[in-house]
Amino acid sequence: MSHSRTVEIEGHIIDSGTMQRCFGAVMDLGGSFDVEQFDVGTHEEAESYCRMAVSADDAETLQAILHELHQNGAMLENPTDVDLVSAPADKVVPPNFYSTTNHPTEVLYDGEWIDVERIEMDCALVVEPHGAPDGGPRAYTKVLNAVEEGDLIATDQSGIRVRPPERPRSGGGAFGFMQGGVSAERPSNSTIREVAAELREVKAAGGNVMVVAGPAVIHSGAGDALADLVAAGYVDALSVGNGFATHDLERSLYGTSLGMDVETLEHPRKGHKHHIWTISEIIRAGGIEAAVEDGIIGEGVMYQCVKNDVDTVLAGSIRDDGPLPDTITDAVAAQNAIRDQAHEADIVLMLATLLHSVAVGNCLPSTTKTVCVDINPATVTQLLDRGSAQAVGMVTDIGTFVPTLAEFVLDADEPIDESVESAGASGE
Amino acid sequence: MSHSRTVEIEGHIIDSGTMQRCFGAVMDLGGSFDVEQFDVGTHEEAESYCRMAVSADDAETLQAILHELHQNGAMLENPTDVDLVSAPADKVVPPNFYSTTNHPTEVLYDGEWIDVERIEMDCALVVEPHGAPDGGPRAYTKVLNAVEEGDLIATDQSGIRVRPPERPRSGGGAFGFMQGGVSAERPSNSTIREVAAELREVKAAGGNVMVVAGPAVIHSGAGDALADLVAAGYVDALSVGNGFATHDLERSLYGTSLGMDVETLEHPRKGHKHHIWTISEIIRAGGIEAAVEDGIIGEGVMYQCVKNDVDTVLAGSIRDDGPLPDTITDAVAAQNAIRDQAHEADIVLMLATLLHSVAVGNCLPSTTKTVCVDINPATVTQLLDRGSAQAVGMVTDIGTFVPTLAEFVLDADEPIDESVESAGASGE
Amino acid sequence: MSHSRTVEIEGHIIDSGTMQRCFGAVMDLGGSFDVEQFDVGTHEEAESYCRMAVSADDAETLQAILHELHQNGAMLENPTDVDLVSAPADKVVPPNFYSTTNHPTEVLYDGEWIDVERIEMDCALVVEPHGAPDGGPRAYTKVLNAVEEGDLIATDQSGIRVRPPERPRSGGGAFGFMQGGVSAERPSNSTIREVAAELREVKAAGGNVMVVAGPAVIHSGAGDALADLVAAGYVDALSVGNGFATHDLERSLYGTSLGMDVETLEHPRKGHKHHIWTISEIIRAGGIEAAVEDGIIGEGVMYQCVKNDVDTVLAGSIRDDGPLPDTITDAVAAQNAIRDQAHEADIVLMLATLLHSVAVGNCLPSTTKTVCVDINPATVTQLLDRGSAQAVGMVTDIGTFVPTLAEFVLDADEPIDESVESAGASGE
Amino acid sequence: MSHSRTVEIEGHIIDSGTMQRCFGAVMDLGGSFDVEQFDVGTHEEAESYCRMAVSADDAETLQAILHELHQNGAMLENPTDVDLVSAPADKVVPPNFYSTTNHPTEVLYDGEWIDVERIEMDCALVVEPHGAPDGGPRAYTKVLNAVEEGDLIATDQSGIRVRPPERPRSGGGAFGFMQGGVSAERPSNSTIREVAAELREVKAAGGNVMVVAGPAVIHSGAGDALADLVAAGYVDALSVGNGFATHDLERSLYGTSLGMDVETLEHPRKGHKHHIWTISEIIRAGGIEAAVEDGIIGEGVMYQCVKNDVDTVLAGSIRDDGPLPDTITDAVAAQNAIRDQAHEADIVLMLATLLHSVAVGNCLPSTTKTVCVDINPATVTQLLDRGSAQAVGMVTDIGTFVPTLAEFVLDADEPIDESVESAGASGE
Repeated sequence: MSHSRTVEIEGHIIDSGTMQRCFGAVMDLGGSFDVEQFDVGTHEEAESYCRMAVSADDAETLQAILHELHQNGAMLENPTDVDLVSAPADKVVPPNFYSTTNHPTEVLYDGEWIDVERIEMDCALVVEPHGAPDGGPRAYTKVLNAVEEGDLIATDQSGIRVRPPERPRSGGGAFGFMQGGVSAERPSNSTIREVAAELREVKAAGGNVMVVAGPAVIHSGAGDALADLVAAGYVDALSVGNGFATHDLERSLYGTSLGMDVETLEHPRKGHKHHIWTISEIIRAGGIEAAVEDGIIGEGVMYQCVKNDVDTVLAGSIRDDGPLPDTITDAVAAQNAIRDQAHEADIVLMLATLLHSVAVGNCLPSTTKTVCVDINPATVTQLLDRGSAQAVGMVTDIGTFVPTLAEFVLDADEPIDESVESAGASGE
Repeated sequence: MSHSRTVEIEGHIIDSGTMQRCFGAVMDLGGSFDVEQFDVGTHEEAESYCRMAVSADDAETLQAILHELHQNGAMLENPTDVDLVSAPADKVVPPNFYSTTNHPTEVLYDGEWIDVERIEMDCALVVEPHGAPDGGPRAYTKVLNAVEEGDLIATDQSGIRVRPPERPRSGGGAFGFMQGGVSAERPSNSTIREVAAELREVKAAGGNVMVVAGPAVIHSGAGDALADLVAAGYVDALSVGNGFATHDLERSLYGTSLGMDVETLEHPRKGHKHHIWTISEIIRAGGIEAAVEDGIIGEGVMYQCVKNDVDTVLAGSIRDDGPLPDTITDAVAAQNAIRDQAHEADIVLMLATLLHSVAVGNCLPSTTKTVCVDINPATVTQLLDRGSAQAVGMVTDIGTFVPTLAEFVLDADEPIDESVESAGASGE
Repeated sequence: MSHSRTVEIEGHIIDSGTMQRCFGAVMDLGGSFDVEQFDVGTHEEAESYCRMAVSADDAETLQAILHELHQNGAMLENPTDVDLVSAPADKVVPPNFYSTTNHPTEVLYDGEWIDVERIEMDCALVVEPHGAPDGGPRAYTKVLNAVEEGDLIATDQSGIRVRPPERPRSGGGAFGFMQGGVSAERPSNSTIREVAAELREVKAAGGNVMVVAGPAVIHSGAGDALADLVAAGYVDALSVGNGFATHDLERSLYGTSLGMDVETLEHPRKGHKHHIWTISEIIRAGGIEAAVEDGIIGEGVMYQCVKNDVDTVLAGSIRDDGPLPDTITDAVAAQNAIRDQAHEADIVLMLATLLHSVAVGNCLPSTTKTVCVDINPATVTQLLDRGSAQAVGMVTDIGTFVPTLAEFVLDADEPIDESVESAGASGE
Repeated sequence: MSHSRTVEIEGHIIDSGTMQRCFGAVMDLGGSFDVEQFDVGTHEEAESYCRMAVSADDAETLQAILHELHQNGAMLENPTDVDLVSAPADKVVPPNFYSTTNHPTEVLYDGEWIDVERIEMDCALVVEPHGAPDGGPRAYTKVLNAVEEGDLIATDQSGIRVRPPERPRSGGGAFGFMQGGVSAERPSNSTIREVAAELREVKAAGGNVMVVAGPAVIHSGAGDALADLVAAGYVDALSVGNGFATHDLERSLYGTSLGMDVETLEHPRKGHKHHIWTISEIIRAGGIEAAVEDGIIGEGVMYQCVKNDVDTVLAGSIRDDGPLPDTITDAVAAQNAIRDQAHEADIVLMLATLLHSVAVGNCLPSTTKTVCVDINPATVTQLLDRGSAQAVGMVTDIGTFVPTLAEFVLDADEPIDESVESAGASGE
C-alpha cells in the first residue's frame, strides 16, 4: 500500500466509540492501519491518545479513509493552515470545498486554532481574515445559497479539526448518547418525567426552549396543554407550519380541528370548510397578530405566542392551504428564519412533525439537546440519526404526551426559580 | 342468466350499509339483480325491506353470491328447515358444512326459528333436537376440533339467518360502527375519557370487563395503573401470555422489566437474567398463587388478580421462556379457556398485543364492545376488521394510555354505584 | 323540529354508499329525515331517486346537515341561482364563501347549469358572467391566494351541485372505489401487473401520466427502472423535490446516493459530502439542463427527463440542501406549477413521498386515477382518503415496486399501439 | 470503592465495540475502572488485550458490573472451576443459576476449558462429568422445563467464558455486524442479490437452509416462488404455523387465500369459508402428507415440502383455526421441534412472521446467519436485536421479495456446483 498518512486521535475515544468507527472505516474502505502509539486512559476521567499510520493502494481510497477519520475527530499529524479559495461567484463554491459536519469545529489559520461559529452541517466554511471585532480572523459556516463572490472558502480538510460528541461521564438518563435506534419498550411516563425535569432545568438556567410542532398536536387534542406551556413561559421559540397554525386558530374560531370537535368528538365529519374559512378570516383580519388584537382569536397556542412574545416562525410548504398571511412561503427565507431560532436553542422539542423537525435538525449543532416524539418509529429514528450528543426519542402518542408533559412541568411542587415564575406571570 | 333465486333483506339496511354491500357483492361476482320490492323506512326508526331476484350464468356463481348475501343478513324467500348431516367421525365435519359468522344467528328447525348459542365465527353449527332443558331443540357453535362423531351439523345455508350489526340510531361517540379504518387524528384524551365512561357504565350495570394485555404494558411502565384497575374491581377477566406475567412478576421481584428499572430508567442493560430468574423462582414456589401466598410476590397485576379472584388465563406460545407453571401450553386448551372468558365479556380491552387479541377476537360475537389500543396502526386496523358493532381503536402509547385511563376511571367524582366500590374495597 | 328543507338525491346512490352517508349524516348531527319518495333502481344499470325532508331543532344544525348532504350530491328541491358576492380585496373572499370539493360540480347561473372548470378542493368558486368564449357565463375554481378584488365568488351552497364518484358498474380490479383502507394482504405482483396494464392503456389512449416521486426511489435503487420508463415515453410529467433530483444527479456524478454505492452496497458511510458537492456542481453548471448539455450528467431520471422533454417540476421545501437552481423555492409558485401538471394528468403515480403526494393530491379532481405506493401504511391510507373514484394503494417496497412495474410495462409481448412505441423511439 | 475485581478481555475488542460496551457498563452502573495493561493490536489482524481492575461501592453493584463484562467476553483473572450445583427437582434450577447467552461459551471444569454444546440463550448450563464419548466431561445448555433432578447446573459466572461475535475483518456486504437498526434506504434489489448469492454459497458448501414463513407469504402471492425454491432444493427446513400451511393448502384446493383469488384479484370477499373448509378437508384426509398422496393437494409450498422431504414443523398458536392435524399444539413440544431445526441451520430466512421468527431466534446461536424480512420496521429491528454476528434486515414487501429472490437464486447463469443441482433434481 503505497499511499500513507499519519493521523492522531484523542479524547474519550474508546468509550465514545470513536476508535471503533475509525478502525472500522479503514477496514470497510479497504485500507490498512498501523498503530504507532496508543495511550489508554486508565480511568473514567482520563483521555486516550492514538497515533496511527493509515495506508491504501491508491490516493483516492486514502482520501476517502482520511475523510471518514476526519469526521470522527482524527487530525493529520503536523497539521498545516486551512486551505482557503475565493468563491468565484455568488452561490458558487470552489471545487473540493469543505462541507461541514454538525460538530464543534476549529480551523488552523495563521498558525492559530480558531473556533468556527454557527455550527451547522452541509455548509461551506468561510474565513474572514479580519472579521473578528479585534481585527483578527473569524470563521463561520455559510449555506451554499448564501455564499458571495470572493468569500474565502475552506477546501479539503487539512487544518480543520472536528470534535464529535463524547460519551458523558455520567449516565444521561433518558437522554441517550448518539442513540441511533429507539426502543418502544421504555417506561413512557418515567421518560416524560425526565424530559419535564430537563425542561425545568434549562429554563431555570436561563436557557432557550424551542418547540417544533406538527398539526397532529392540535388534532390529537394536545393544543391546550401546549398553550399552557407557552403561557407559563416554557417556550421561547415556536417553529411550525401553516397547517399547525390554521388548525390551532380553527379551534379558537369554531371549536373544531379539521371539522371535528376536539372536546366532544362530535360531528366528526369530512369536509374542511372550517379549515379554509379560518384561513380566510385571518386573511381578512390581516394576520394572526391582528386577529388576536381584534379579539377574533381568544385562545390557543398561536394566541399565547402572540401574548407572550414568543419568537414564532410559520414556514410554508407545498401542501399548505391558503396560506395564512404570516406564512413565509419562500423555502430559503423560511430556512433562514428557522436557522436563527435553531442557533439560539438550548433544547428543542420536536413534536409530531417530520418535515419541520428535519428542517430544524439540519440547522442544529450536535451539542443541542433534542427530544423527538412521534407515533411513527421511522420518524423518530430518522430524527435521532444526526449524531446528537444528548437526544431522547419517544415513539408515543402526541395527544397524551403533551398533556402529561405539561402536567409534570407545571404541577411540580415548587417553582424552579423566580425568573421563570415571573416570566410566566407577566406573560399571562 | 339461467340460475336465479329470490332473497329478502330487512332492517336498517340502507344506513347500515347492508344494501350497498349486497348490491356490490352481486356486481363484483358477476351476477345480476332485479329488485321486486323495496320499502324504504321513511324516518330514522323505520326499517326497510327489500326483495330481489338474483341471477347468475352458472350455479356456482349464484352460490357464491348467495353466500355473500347470506352473510349480510339476506334470507332465501320461503326458507326451509336447516339441512343437518351427521358428523362421520370426531373432528370431521360433513362436506359443505356451514361455517359460522360472528353475528347473531338463528336456525329454522322443525318450522321454528331458534337462536344459536355461543356465537363465534368459523365454527360448525350443531343442532341437538332435544338439547334444550324443555326437551326442545337447541343450536350452538362448535369449533372443528370439538366436533364429535354423530353431531348433527348444519350444511349449506338454507334455514339459517344471520343478523349483522346495524348502525346504532344515535351516535356512538368514540365507539364507531364497523369502522374498518382507524384515524390517528382523533383527540386522544377525549377518546380515553369516553372509554373510561364506558367502563364505568358496564361495571355499574353489573357487566363483565375482560382485559387482554401484552408485555409492552409492563415495559412501558403501565403495570401499576393496570394493577390499580384490577384492585378497584374494574377487571373481571385477564387474558395474557407467559411473557406478560413474567415481566409483571419480575417487576415485583427485582423492580425491573427485561433488565430495566421501570421507575428510574437506570441500568437499562441487555441481558434477561432477571427475566429467566423470575421464571425459576415461580417454578420453585409452585406457581403464581403459591408465590403470592408465600409473600414472594407482593405487588403488580398478577398479585392483584390473585388477591381479587380475577379469572386469569395464561396462554402459552412458542416464543415463551420457561414457561411459568400456570401457563396453558396446549394451544387448543388455551383457546378453550380464552373462549370461556370471551363469551362472558361485555366489553374487551385489547392492550398492546396482536397475538392474544386475535385469539380473543376469534371467539367474540360481533355484539361485544371492544377497545383496541396499539402503537402500530396495522395492529389496530386488523383487530377492528371483525365487523364489531361497537368498537373503538386507538393508535397510541400503551404507557400513557393505561395510566390516563386509570385516572379517568378511578378519579371520577363519585362512585358509579356501591357494588363496584365495595368490590374494590373487599378485594384489597 | 321546526327547521326543515327538502332535498333530492339521484344516481347509483345505494350501492355507492351515498344514501348510507346521507342518512348517517342526518342522524349523527342530531337531525331527522322524512323520506317522501324513494325509487330504487331495480337492476344494476338503473339509477335510484330519493326525495326527503330534513329537519333540525335549529337553523345552524340544519345548515350543517345540508352541508353534508350537499357534499354527497344532494340538492335542494327547486334550486335557485348560485349566490355570488364580489371579493372585497385581493386574496379576501366574502364571508360564508363556498369552499369546493374535489368532485365534478355545476352551478346554476341565470337558470342554466354550467360545469365548473379546474375542479379542486378547498377553493373558492368564481363565476364570470361573460367569461366563456361565446360570451356566456363561465365558472371555475380559484385558490384563496389567487382571488382578486371584484371576483364574483359563490357563497352558501344553493345553486351548486356536486357529483361524488359512483361505484363503477363492473369491478375495478386493483383500482378500488373510494377505498379508505389499504390491505397489505393483497398479492403484490398481481397488483403491480394491473397497474402496468392501466399505464399501458392510458398511454395507448393518448393519456397523460404524472409521476410524483420521493428520494427513496433513488436510495432504494429504483432510479434506473424509473429512468427506463421515462426513456420509453411512459412519463409525461414528473413532480419531485430538490432531494429527489439531487440524489438522482449524485448517482450520475458519483455512483452514490447519500454516500452509498447503489450497485455494490459498498462504502455505506455517513456523510453527505457527495450530496452537497452534487448541488454545488449543478449550481456551477447553471442548472440541470445545462449540466446535461455539458455532458456532466449522462444518465438517470433527470437526464432522461431533459432528453425526453418531460414536464418537470422541482418544488422546494424547508428541508432542502442547496437548493438546486431549478428548484421553485416559493411554495405558492410551486403549487401553481404542480397544479398545472395535476390538471393535465389522467393517471398519477405517487411513489414514496408523502409531502409531494399530498401537494399533488390537493390539486386533483376525484376523477383522476391514482396509484399510491409507500412502505408506510399510514402514508398510503392518508393519500387514498381523498375519495378518489379509482385508486389503488400498495404498502410495498418502492425499491422492488418500480423495477417490477417497469418490467411488466416494458417487457409486454407486443406494443400497446404504435404511437407509444414511436414516442419512445423518438426520445420524446 | 471498597469492592474490586480484576478482569481480562482480549480479541478484536476495540473495533468490535467490546471495550466501548465494557467501559460504558462500568460507568452506567456507577462503578470505576483502572486499566492495568492495554496492548492494542497495531494492525487489522492483531488482537488487543486489556486487564483492568473494576471497583464499586458495594458487592451487589460490583456483581452487576461483572455480569455485564462477562457477557461481553471479559473473564476474571485467574479463573476457577465452574461452580456446579445439583438441581433439587425436575424443572427447578438452583438459586443464582447461570443463564446462558447465545454466544459461543466454554466452561472451566477440572482445570480444562470445554466447549458448551447446543448454544442457546436463557438456558441453564449443565455439565456431565463423564458425559463425553471418551468418558470425559461434557457441557451443554438445557431449557428450564427440561431440567431434571440431579442435573449439575452451573451457578454464578466464574469459570465460564463467552465469546461475543467479533467484527469480520473484511466487509460483510449486506450482512452487517450486530446491526441493531435497519435502514429502509438501502437499494432493495442489490440487497436481495446478495442474499441470493449467500443462499447459493451455503448450499454449494453443503449447508442447511431454514425458512421461517408467515401467512403473508401466501396472501401476498409469493407462494409459488417459495415452492420453486423448495422444489429446487434450496430449503432444508420449513418452520411455519397452522395459518401459513392452511393458506397455502387453500390455494391448492380453491385457488384462493382468505377468499381472494391470488392470480386475478377477483372476488376479494370477506368470509373465510374456503379457509375453514380447507382445514376440514385435510382433517378428513388424515393430514397433509395423506392429502398429497391422495392427490387432493397438487401444488404449493406444503406439496413441495412433502415431495422433497423437507423437514417441516407446524407450530400451533392460540389464534389458529382448526388446527390442521399436523400442527403441534403444545408450545413446549413445538419449541423442541423448532430447536432441533434451528440447531441444524447454517442460514435462516425469516419471512414476514414475528411470532415464529422470535421463536426460532430464541434457539439460535449468535453465529448463525440470519435474514429478516418484514414490511414492519419494528419487526425487523426486534429480530436483528439478538446480537447476531451476521444478519441482514430488510423492510420490504414479502410479495415482491420472494419472487425476486427466487429469480436471482434460480436464474443464475451457472449452477453453484453439481451437488446442489442433483439435490434439486432428485428432489423433484
